[in-house]
Amino acid sequence: MKKGTKISRESFASWTEVSIRYSDLDPNGHVNNGAINQYFEDGRVKFREDLMGGLGREILTGFAIAHFEVSYYSALNYPGSVEVGTVVTRIGETSFGLGQAIFVGSREIAGAHVVSVYFDPATGKKKHLPEELRSVLKKALLF
Amino acid sequence: MKKGTKISRESFASWTEVSIRYSDLDPNGHVNNGAINQYFEDGRVKFREDLMGGLGREILTGFAIAHFEVSYYSALNYPGSVEVGTVVTRIGETSFGLGQAIFVGSREIAGAHVVSVYFDPATGKKKHLPEELRSVLKKALLF
Amino acid sequence: MKKGTKISRESFASWTEVSIRYSDLDPNGHVNNGAINQYFEDGRVKFREDLMGGLGREILTGFAIAHFEVSYYSALNYPGSVEVGTVVTRIGETSFGLGQAIFVGSREIAGAHVVSVYFDPATGKKKHLPEELRSVLKKALLF
Amino acid sequence: MKKGTKISRESFASWTEVSIRYSDLDPNGHVNNGAINQYFEDGRVKFREDLMGGLGREILTGFAIAHFEVSYYSALNYPGSVEVGTVVTRIGETSFGLGQAIFVGSREIAGAHVVSVYFDPATGKKKHLPEELRSVLKKALLF
Repeated sequence: MKKGTKISRESFASWTEVSIRYSDLDPNGHVNNGAINQYFEDGRVKFREDLMGGLGREILTGFAIAHFEVSYYSALNYPGSVEVGTVVTRIGETSFGLGQAIFVGSREIAGAHVVSVYFDPATGKKKHLPEELRSVLKKALLF
Repeated sequence: MKKGTKISRESFASWTEVSIRYSDLDPNGHVNNGAINQYFEDGRVKFREDLMGGLGREILTGFAIAHFEVSYYSALNYPGSVEVGTVVTRIGETSFGLGQAIFVGSREIAGAHVVSVYFDPATGKKKHLPEELRSVLKKALLF
Repeated sequence: MKKGTKISRESFASWTEVSIRYSDLDPNGHVNNGAINQYFEDGRVKFREDLMGGLGREILTGFAIAHFEVSYYSALNYPGSVEVGTVVTRIGETSFGLGQAIFVGSREIAGAHVVSVYFDPATGKKKHLPEELRSVLKKALLF
Repeated sequence: MKKGTKISRESFASWTEVSIRYSDLDPNGHVNNGAINQYFEDGRVKFREDLMGGLGREILTGFAIAHFEVSYYSALNYPGSVEVGTVVTRIGETSFGLGQAIFVGSREIAGAHVVSVYFDPATGKKKHLPEELRSVLKKALLF
């Protein structure tokens, strides 16, 4: 997927809703970018639950975010809640990519691309994605 | 109200719902007490909106939390959401008291007592609660 | 110790320093109370390291904060850092009390009292504080 | 600057130090990525103070982060503190780029690239960077 391409709302494979908190506001009265990054994190945890919940625990440990990249399109106000969509954008040898977006209704507040790497917690070395995981990711791959 | 007395669920005057975030978890895998304190804060903001939304802005500025006191009854897990109830427990000369509780279903996770003082932001001195505000607070006073 | 009594700066047994973050600010441009509560938490973790670091791990698991109570005395600005002092105020059968305060120079920003209970994580039941722990706490007891 | 290129430690124009908090830890016992993003934010605020503190307030309002991109290289533990370096990497017509990195000693924990856009808060439209600001940014431009 070309960098900066927005993913359409109906293409996301997993959704979660997050309520905005007063403590998310910064001195400008807008939601702080760091809070928006937390919403994306909750989207990824929900994605993992939705899609990988059935996999063995030994597959689920050993993931780390290697790269996170976000474009902020619009200021976000309190109170309210946001919807976070997540979809697989790439399945590599030892990593996979996720596309995410945060919406208030049909308005896209921010979009993100994330690279998750798979590694051995004991050695810190990258590992090949197991076949069981690849087949799950394929089901959530952006068409 | 005697210290430590729990307020029953049906007695709260204002409610809000807050979704738990992954970033609320601490190394024990439970929701951190600091996150629980944020949920109480959102309950207070919602209370202010619900009850004081119609008051003039000059009344709304000039409040500060002087005292916050919380009892934690039960560990809280992710994912999920909590309900936060808030009610007025005391109306004083220059301050008022709020009682709050956090629930998951009928289970009370934590209860709090809060003292809000009213003061002049310019001088920092305490001010008498205006009559308009007192009458609003009375409507939400714990019976 | 009578409720509301301030503990003098030289009486604290353990100290830590915490830098204030931009994300601690709320829409009023002051440090949010929730951030101040996090500073107290770091004070407690430092206290545990300083005093309990030599105890067995089986003693260190099984603590939970049952009660936290804080008075906010003064608004706090960014940037800067705070010092957090912690001292034992009470040693009970199954719990102990901590007194804490946050300072910027000699100015006290907030003071807190905390009740930590000792329990069996497996059953959830309160347990007697082991003698080894009691003797450590005594060394840090407010005289 | 080619994407992914690391900036050497001595090239940063502004530095700040941030203490790690217990609440930054996630259930894995490592510092959460969201906390690392907050450290970067503090680096940017310090950069603005160091370099732009002398500019008029009308220049300082009207900035927003449009894009933030971070690579996480290494797990980060508590307690401790990090140093955050910030430098200008690009000066455009209506935006500028910052390069940032987080270090513990000489070990780079994470590196980030940030695009700040300049706009009119009233209309939301992008504006040209004023000459006064451009000359300040040039002094902090990565050579």
